[in-house]
Amino acid sequence: MEFTVGQIAEVLQGSVEGDATQPVNRLAKIEEARAGSLSFLSNLKYEHFLYTTQATVVIVSRTLELKKPVSAALIRVDDPYTSFTALLEFYQQASRTGKRGVEEPAYMAASASIGGNHYRGAFSYIGENCEIGADVVIFPHVFIGDRVKIGDGTIVYAGAKIYAETVIGQRCTVHAGAVIGSDGFGFAPQPDGSYRTIPQIGNVVLEDNVSIGANATIDCATLGSTIIREGAKIDNLVQLAHNVEVGRHTVIASQTGVSGSTKIGDFCVLAGQVGMAGHLTLANRTTVTAQSGVGKSIKQEGVLLQGSPAFGLRDSLRANAIFRHLPELERRLRLLEQQAQPPEKP
Amino acid sequence: MEFTVGQIAEVLQGSVEGDATQPVNRLAKIEEARAGSLSFLSNLKYEHFLYTTQATVVIVSRTLELKKPVSAALIRVDDPYTSFTALLEFYQQASRTGKRGVEEPAYMAASASIGGNHYRGAFSYIGENCEIGADVVIFPHVFIGDRVKIGDGTIVYAGAKIYAETVIGQRCTVHAGAVIGSDGFGFAPQPDGSYRTIPQIGNVVLEDNVSIGANATIDCATLGSTIIREGAKIDNLVQLAHNVEVGRHTVIASQTGVSGSTKIGDFCVLAGQVGMAGHLTLANRTTVTAQSGVGKSIKQEGVLLQGSPAFGLRDSLRANAIFRHLPELERRLRLLEQQAQPPEKP
Amino acid sequence: MEFTVGQIAEVLQGSVEGDATQPVNRLAKIEEARAGSLSFLSNLKYEHFLYTTQATVVIVSRTLELKKPVSAALIRVDDPYTSFTALLEFYQQASRTGKRGVEEPAYMAASASIGGNHYRGAFSYIGENCEIGADVVIFPHVFIGDRVKIGDGTIVYAGAKIYAETVIGQRCTVHAGAVIGSDGFGFAPQPDGSYRTIPQIGNVVLEDNVSIGANATIDCATLGSTIIREGAKIDNLVQLAHNVEVGRHTVIASQTGVSGSTKIGDFCVLAGQVGMAGHLTLANRTTVTAQSGVGKSIKQEGVLLQGSPAFGLRDSLRANAIFRHLPELERRLRLLEQQAQPPEKP
Repeated sequence: MEFTVGQIAEVLQGSVEGDATQPVNRLAKIEEARAGSLSFLSNLKYEHFLYTTQATVVIVSRTLELKKPVSAALIRVDDPYTSFTALLEFYQQASRTGKRGVEEPAYMAASASIGGNHYRGAFSYIGENCEIGADVVIFPHVFIGDRVKIGDGTIVYAGAKIYAETVIGQRCTVHAGAVIGSDGFGFAPQPDGSYRTIPQIGNVVLEDNVSIGANATIDCATLGSTIIREGAKIDNLVQLAHNVEVGRHTVIASQTGVSGSTKIGDFCVLAGQVGMAGHLTLANRTTVTAQSGVGKSIKQEGVLLQGSPAFGLRDSLRANAIFRHLPELERRLRLLEQQAQPPEKP
Repeated sequence: MEFTVGQIAEVLQGSVEGDATQPVNRLAKIEEARAGSLSFLSNLKYEHFLYTTQATVVIVSRTLELKKPVSAALIRVDDPYTSFTALLEFYQQASRTGKRGVEEPAYMAASASIGGNHYRGAFSYIGENCEIGADVVIFPHVFIGDRVKIGDGTIVYAGAKIYAETVIGQRCTVHAGAVIGSDGFGFAPQPDGSYRTIPQIGNVVLEDNVSIGANATIDCATLGSTIIREGAKIDNLVQLAHNVEVGRHTVIASQTGVSGSTKIGDFCVLAGQVGMAGHLTLANRTTVTAQSGVGKSIKQEGVLLQGSPAFGLRDSLRANAIFRHLPELERRLRLLEQQAQPPEKP
Repeated sequence: MEFTVGQIAEVLQGSVEGDATQPVNRLAKIEEARAGSLSFLSNLKYEHFLYTTQATVVIVSRTLELKKPVSAALIRVDDPYTSFTALLEFYQQASRTGKRGVEEPAYMAASASIGGNHYRGAFSYIGENCEIGADVVIFPHVFIGDRVKIGDGTIVYAGAKIYAETVIGQRCTVHAGAVIGSDGFGFAPQPDGSYRTIPQIGNVVLEDNVSIGANATIDCATLGSTIIREGAKIDNLVQLAHNVEVGRHTVIASQTGVSGSTKIGDFCVLAGQVGMAGHLTLANRTTVTAQSGVGKSIKQEGVLLQGSPAFGLRDSLRANAIFRHLPELERRLRLLEQQAQPPEKP
């Protein structure tokens, strides 16, 4: 995509200082921008970059007074940050998520339905009796099993796999390679030490505005539903086991794993590589720091947890501060022991 | 799928109390069941749910005596749990794994062979000289490289990738996005600090009744085979490196990683997010708790390990109990020091 | 593939002792070799295997003097290890990475270009305005988004997903299921506790000779580029967040996660399951042991880190050695307390 400085100024209802005919084809930070880039200056802490930037054009405030000459063209607007964010959203929409139409070959069962204004990439697959909404974007190699429902405006990136019976809300994003609805890890031990597979016939439900990261895995419920509630954001390579529930607007960072039947509250934050045991309940607004292992339910709201096994963040920081000096602690103890009890004669 | 209460009773050789013509289209727990659901009551601890459930029909024992009126229809059988499990297995088979036939376009090399009664989903790929058994289910977007062998009754879910030369036994399950046979992570350091890739020409062997989780990765051997023995169950996002061996009926939970050439015994249990160093041997019936890091071989059978680095579970629990109180321990030590040696004069 | 002993000897410029007409179809370690295998003996520590091996043929040094009769044929060369490695590379090239031509159906946008001598597997997808080099191998189900650039000699295995705008250098390897260029995990908290998605419009750049493991995920930059520099090797299931930089010839083992904007130096080694916080800088030649959690920048080169939170390896080993004996430490402390302050009278 390529626009002129003047075209962008018109969209932003800004005024141009400099050559409005120059072409711009990318957005960049002001300190990294090269020729052809559009950047912005919002926080005046970074004003010095304005006088050295190689950007073709910079969005600045209408009220900014220049202290030195600037080689870039300027677009003056009321709020540079808001204007730049609008361009970011436009750019992403245009370059990635704005695709429409059907590329052949694509597979859709005759019994499936899909709303208008959609994209179905080549080699995408939609199974029997699926009900897909309008404005849905389905990238190549996406697998959508039988009887799946997907709401309006949802985007499914390349090669995501959605097992049969899954229900996905509106305006969700499923990133590439994510697996939604795989069998829960349920095996009944037999007398001879082998395992018999417990059938997993539940499903996964994603409510509206949920985001699922690349190569994340979400198992279906044994019975009933694994549920990710409205607005929850799940990062790459996260594992959510069967019958897990994730509350509204909860954020789970990369490589975290949640064991079966655990219920996480609303507005929680789980940092990266956290592990949670099964059948726990985590109260609303719980925060768990990276690499922690949670083995107990948390009933009080707003708790901060750290460690493996996890306990209160402040206590954990204190314990870790001593941990590093354990050899010294042991030496001090030994010294006291020697003082208390003089060594035996040879 | 939809059946009447009467049809289900007939299959289960049970007797109906109530309206046998009602349709049923899902299975559910008795406390979560809604209209249209079939549920069961086995453990009498949950009998009170029978009198409030919204299920359309509940499977109960022939000998159950009702204490109150029940709105659901009943199917009376000898053993409600066994009957319900049979329905679960039937349901899963019918809805997911019972697909048969070929959806076009699907790719199979002319030199490959496949047994009868199979399913090959659209966009599935079978390479040269593959030998695939009967009753095999291959979902869309599955990649099967050249010279792969797969036994009867195995199911490969959407988008699993099986590299060339892999050997898979009978009645295995490979979940969506799993990668089997990728190159081992082998690089020889060069004098200039760069790395030269060591060719990885071995393969992966899955014996019978093995289950591989979604987006799990199993590297091929450098030479020889990475082997997953009979009945082993591997969860989502597990990493098994080159030349690893996993013993019979061993269970490995999600996000665990096993480094190169490590041999895990039979009937072991590795919980989630465990890490194992390379070139270790783990005796039969070893259990490793979640997030532990195993750095040494275990020769004695039946050991329980915890911690990173891992040692005996009981000792680990005790050490962790003290760890939390390290600040207090340090304070007590300081107090003793002060008592032993009065502060110097100012 | 099958060759005769004589054909292999000719390629290696070696001389045959024994039956040169025997067929060989696999390479194996000398102690594991069966009929049909070719093996080698380089380290004389393993010479005893030569007299018991079931290999069809063994590559040995021209100068080796036999102490007992050998049933295998021999190929005598100057340097058995180098000759065997050459065969390994030839074998891998022939069996996996030497594919050429186009299998139908494959999708390539009319505006995309690709150099000569390439392979495009069935169901592979190449988007608009892509520029793909020569000698490139693209396995089935690979997704390459719009405007991606890929250098000569790069191999992309089955089902890897490369988002739009990604730039990949020469002779890179991307393993099956890897996702390159997914959205960074960026969400701006709103006053009501919900999150607004921050558009991620940057890209990912892989320089030359980079290797990416199976099902690894590399997020695009918010603005600018996530960069993996020349010769870096990234293992399976690794997560690299938005705007991360990985230095030249750095090795990152399986299941490690690096948070946003962290810069890792050249020649570093991160072992498996390591976690790194965001916005850190790691000096060249830093080594981090398995399962460690790095929360601070490291400015000095050549440091070894361990633990979660991580500190110097030697101090960490010492602290862990005491940690195991914390219960005993506490008992010793209690004893001193009792000595210092006799128990009160009953």
